Amino acid sequence: MNIIDYAKKAKNASLLLAAIDTARKNDYLAMLANALKAHEEDIIKANREDIARSETEGISAPLLKRLKFDEAKIAEAVSGLESLVKLPEPVGITRYAMELDEGLELYRVSCPIGVIGVIFESRPDALVQISSLCLKSGNAVLLKGGREALETNRILTKIIVEVSSQTEMPEGWVHLLETREDVKTMLGLDEYIDLIIPRGSNEFVRYIMDNTRIPVLGHADGICHLYVDNDADVDMAIALTVDSKTQYVSVCNALETLLVHKSIAKDFLPALKKAMDEKRVELLGCDATRNIISAAPAREEDWRTEYLDYKLSIKIVDSLDDAIAHINQYGSGHTDAIVTGNRDTAMRFMELVDSANVFWNASTRFSDGFRYGLGAEVGISTNKIHARGPVGLEGLLIYKYKLIGNGHTVAEYAEGRKKFTHRKLNKKL
Amino acid sequence: MNIIDYAKKAKNASLLLAAIDTARKNDYLAMLANALKAHEEDIIKANREDIARSETEGISAPLLKRLKFDEAKIAEAVSGLESLVKLPEPVGITRYAMELDEGLELYRVSCPIGVIGVIFESRPDALVQISSLCLKSGNAVLLKGGREALETNRILTKIIVEVSSQTEMPEGWVHLLETREDVKTMLGLDEYIDLIIPRGSNEFVRYIMDNTRIPVLGHADGICHLYVDNDADVDMAIALTVDSKTQYVSVCNALETLLVHKSIAKDFLPALKKAMDEKRVELLGCDATRNIISAAPAREEDWRTEYLDYKLSIKIVDSLDDAIAHINQYGSGHTDAIVTGNRDTAMRFMELVDSANVFWNASTRFSDGFRYGLGAEVGISTNKIHARGPVGLEGLLIYKYKLIGNGHTVAEYAEGRKKFTHRKLNKKL
Repeated sequence: MNIIDYAKKAKNASLLLAAIDTARKNDYLAMLANALKAHEEDIIKANREDIARSETEGISAPLLKRLKFDEAKIAEAVSGLESLVKLPEPVGITRYAMELDEGLELYRVSCPIGVIGVIFESRPDALVQISSLCLKSGNAVLLKGGREALETNRILTKIIVEVSSQTEMPEGWVHLLETREDVKTMLGLDEYIDLIIPRGSNEFVRYIMDNTRIPVLGHADGICHLYVDNDADVDMAIALTVDSKTQYVSVCNALETLLVHKSIAKDFLPALKKAMDEKRVELLGCDATRNIISAAPAREEDWRTEYLDYKLSIKIVDSLDDAIAHINQYGSGHTDAIVTGNRDTAMRFMELVDSANVFWNASTRFSDGFRYGLGAEVGISTNKIHARGPVGLEGLLIYKYKLIGNGHTVAEYAEGRKKFTHRKLNKKL
Repeated sequence: MNIIDYAKKAKNASLLLAAIDTARKNDYLAMLANALKAHEEDIIKANREDIARSETEGISAPLLKRLKFDEAKIAEAVSGLESLVKLPEPVGITRYAMELDEGLELYRVSCPIGVIGVIFESRPDALVQISSLCLKSGNAVLLKGGREALETNRILTKIIVEVSSQTEMPEGWVHLLETREDVKTMLGLDEYIDLIIPRGSNEFVRYIMDNTRIPVLGHADGICHLYVDNDADVDMAIALTVDSKTQYVSVCNALETLLVHKSIAKDFLPALKKAMDEKRVELLGCDATRNIISAAPAREEDWRTEYLDYKLSIKIVDSLDDAIAHINQYGSGHTDAIVTGNRDTAMRFMELVDSANVFWNASTRFSDGFRYGLGAEVGISTNKIHARGPVGLEGLLIYKYKLIGNGHTVAEYAEGRKKFTHRKLNKKL
């Protein structure tokens, strides 16, 4: 079978998955948790092969760290599955009901999207997490993991497929792709695949977005801003800059550009410089910034750069509206924060900054599905439609309209013999 | 200014529109209603020019009918604006709120999508309706109407722009495109335009979908099915077939293929044949159908054809599941109905048919924003993400996450010094 056959199979499986009841889905998830525990040794063995091979290939230390799937990671995956079992059934939920006329009732009911294609990098725990979220939400899934994690992904998929067959899940609902060629083919299969979720480097996500007609959910850049308003508390502004920039530099919600109101710059920047020096953060600044503290000159290009490193660009702005305009021009619509003691200023900032996540007096690092309390996340979206910000189970759902009548025809309404009542109902289907 | 400049301007306007309050938006809508009444004569004069020119160009009678914008149509547009004023504010609504920790509160708040590109055919009332829906939902809009309606669209846009300026709406929030070349350019402007809504012929919508990276909301085909189950009431099945097929043949929610359970075919088909003959509907059938009634042979291609005409293809199926499989294979995910007296059968059909609108004992013609009670609609979507079925105001919205803290940093949670509470709040922002 080639990838097109697998995609067709996934499509067929997705049509059946839509009607599988909660108990069966939860049985699957619980059994998968047990199977992961039962196969712990085999999984760790496969993962050690991946690590050994990757080490000889000389991959970077952070990548190696993410590749590791040990007892602790397996325990985490198991506990993730157990929490997923506890989440309420997301499919078949009546979102609203309306009587169109006597005996003619309309229900908007949640349902799965269909077939999801997920492409993720080296972390093997993502395979368990994403496939389980898809199953719980009734979606079939084609997965492509990082090349480095091949053996780990293979054994995890083998376990998933075995448990699927034991619990009589529709055959082919989950399939592991192994080559880049397969990913390329998948991007053309808009007949069978309803949504692509790419996780990984900017270049990679952009490549996906540029090469498919299938809707893509995710984000390329994370050019996040912190704006220090003239009404900011200087200590708080420094603490939030330190956390946003340095708590974990290589992630999408880390700070890249600091905007500072001109009236507070002289108080704030020298103290900031000290804090950044302690964390060994390299500073790049606009001319006005460089008149106050020493920093390399920031070029136009810096405002568009996601460093993902111990580097921070700084710009002094004349006003709140200039800060907002800068963010809307150079930002990536991911996460942007303001530090201010003024509520009106904060409200205006959060209203006018066109980003998925807008924060007042909090670190940009909070934009994350787990921290938001969404449970597991499939990724963070900077899309302007469907789902925005951290995306959990809900982003894997859509709805359908179910209309129940008793032989109702439109002619009667078109000819004025009957009238619509359009009365909201407090009913579930 | 060229179309790129207009798109940039619309983008800037959209950023401001997001924060305009309800009263100002409603003032605009009310003043526009008055302005339409005040300029009634000029509008009708412009429309007569369009009609006269189109007649000499020999456009079809149905197109001419849709082009007409007379006193009655203006009154309808005015009453549409008045109902839109009465609708509750859709922007800035807290969809949920959660305490992440003491003093750290997350709000999911509705907001506009940004800039919408709408391409519609000859009906000038669509221009007023769509631009008003966009304004109420805080979106900027680039509109391209049919060439036939050029003069009418021009004067309507002129009135809209005048009223916008009187009510101080952000300049450039609405702009009328006039050439196909402009539409082509618009499809490439994914930097400024967030969503394209095409209304029109299948070929046209498919052309749009195939030629842009901007998300497209809409539908190409409407290949709708009615499945007559073995537990159907024959009279009801005939009445629903007549209404679904003939109440208005040239629309997307009209019936194209009738599926009949083999056990009821002998009772149902002769009576149906009589009803279809009365309405002059040409029948095409599978072999089993043609053993019972006279009909032209249906080819494989017929199951994929949207006739939009007095033509109906008929197929006899062995079971409910065969009917479902046929619909999921050949349908377009638009509207599909079952006629049956059996609730379990109906529930299974509505669960497993993967379409935006699934009906039990009701005509396919009901799938429409007005009939659903959504108010005006911008179109019907067969997308699997964002919005499905008839799309009203809600489909023009997305949300953003607003997080309010008091200097909260992630390090404290990552290092275990603080724990998330994740407590649902009953609060609005």
